[in-house]
Amino acid sequence: MRLVSFTDQSGQASYGTVEGSEVLDAGSVLRSRWPDLRAVVAAGAVAELAGLGPRRPLADVRLLPPIPEPGKILCIGLNYLSHIAETGRERPSHPSIFTRYPASLVGHGTPLVRPKASQAFDYEGELAVIIGKGGRHIPAAEAFDHVLGYTCVNEGSIRDFQIHTPQFWPGKSFEASGAIGPWIVTADAIDDITRAELTTRVDGAVVQRAWLDDLAIGIPEMIAYISTVITLSPGDVIATGTPGGVGKFRKPQLYLVPGMQVEVEITGIGTLKNGVVDE
Amino acid sequence: MRLVSFTDQSGQASYGTVEGSEVLDAGSVLRSRWPDLRAVVAAGAVAELAGLGPRRPLADVRLLPPIPEPGKILCIGLNYLSHIAETGRERPSHPSIFTRYPASLVGHGTPLVRPKASQAFDYEGELAVIIGKGGRHIPAAEAFDHVLGYTCVNEGSIRDFQIHTPQFWPGKSFEASGAIGPWIVTADAIDDITRAELTTRVDGAVVQRAWLDDLAIGIPEMIAYISTVITLSPGDVIATGTPGGVGKFRKPQLYLVPGMQVEVEITGIGTLKNGVVDE
Repeated sequence: MRLVSFTDQSGQASYGTVEGSEVLDAGSVLRSRWPDLRAVVAAGAVAELAGLGPRRPLADVRLLPPIPEPGKILCIGLNYLSHIAETGRERPSHPSIFTRYPASLVGHGTPLVRPKASQAFDYEGELAVIIGKGGRHIPAAEAFDHVLGYTCVNEGSIRDFQIHTPQFWPGKSFEASGAIGPWIVTADAIDDITRAELTTRVDGAVVQRAWLDDLAIGIPEMIAYISTVITLSPGDVIATGTPGGVGKFRKPQLYLVPGMQVEVEITGIGTLKNGVVDE
Repeated sequence: MRLVSFTDQSGQASYGTVEGSEVLDAGSVLRSRWPDLRAVVAAGAVAELAGLGPRRPLADVRLLPPIPEPGKILCIGLNYLSHIAETGRERPSHPSIFTRYPASLVGHGTPLVRPKASQAFDYEGELAVIIGKGGRHIPAAEAFDHVLGYTCVNEGSIRDFQIHTPQFWPGKSFEASGAIGPWIVTADAIDDITRAELTTRVDGAVVQRAWLDDLAIGIPEMIAYISTVITLSPGDVIATGTPGGVGKFRKPQLYLVPGMQVEVEITGIGTLKNGVVDE
């Protein structure tokens, strides 16, 4: 199943599923019970969305982040061996973790915003894991039981603010500087996520390409480590890190400017596409 | 005014004010309008709490974090000149920022939890700024207009997880590893916050003592910098950093073990006191 959140032409926020070029508005049936997709996930009721709700053209809705207000967005830094190599660092033994707030991510099709404060606006194509079943102290061997599904992230970064100090947060948190979507593909629809391929394109040109098996710290280990610290909850997002090829380390550097189009495609999931505008 | 959130003896969550040794349960009157203190702050209705609600002994309620579920908890690292000196770093030109989730902080009187994963459990006494009026791109000269008030934080840290990578998040996010409170003292009740003195005690012995004017980056500059990145919202918390004297850098080191009592006192605000238990 492909799970989406969206606003319809009247501005009503809803959720449902995507089949082909249609969205099925399950939220119009279920909203009084579960106000949003996160509540559906928390209730363990995702299966009820299948085939439910009036159909309308996907082109007629505005996609939101699939979980519009996740409780946590945890980002893993420096996790592809290719990106670790380009930054000159060594292979990590622990995941490097920082957070983003929901306001920093828009949905598929909504423009990214280059802030007034900086022109060093970079893309980072990533796979995001969406938590289905929460828990603490989740063993790596059981981690996939807690995964609802997967989506694409553009973990857009303001590079000068990212290195003002060793803490990445300021460079990762500008409003509407990143994107997530277009939808969550449920884990049952993906045979082996480590065989997926991630491609990032800027104005159609490939700038990042990697296989998910290039992750230094894998998805089960991330979930085990994070849940040692804190309870994971339904709808939480883990952005798993970006491969080599980011704009900062290209020669010449490639920063995002208004009018550009950025795509993050993951095989078996889909393509997240966003334009760029100035604040 | 001293603003509190609490649960009463029946387990009902509420909010109100403290006068002397009594709590005034304004929430019992206003809860249908504003479910929690954050909603009161967002409505700009804090003045309505003054003198409102039935009185009961403060000892009969369990204090919660004054804003139980803030939208953001932003922590400034390495910000006292004395703490910068003990870590061997240079004076920063930008604030070092990481985040905590609400689950990592308990209220006054609730035990801190030393996790199973580590025994390197350290205290950090800090001043927290609570945002009253939200905004983006707040000039430093107007920053104090956005401050609701102040409280104490024990920004408890798991030191080995803090340095697994350069990103501090894992060491700062263990559940119930820190505390905030006992109450918010509104800004109108404090003449000049930079003249306040912060003292941290472990089992009664002073381990940290500093004046708030020892901050490398002041409160107006923090608010200006953060709001360059993201919109600050009512109830957001900014923990302003800890002075020298943390357990990790003492000789011998002083880590928290079950049975200890930690106090963070700030003149004009009050004393936040918590015991320590094992997970």
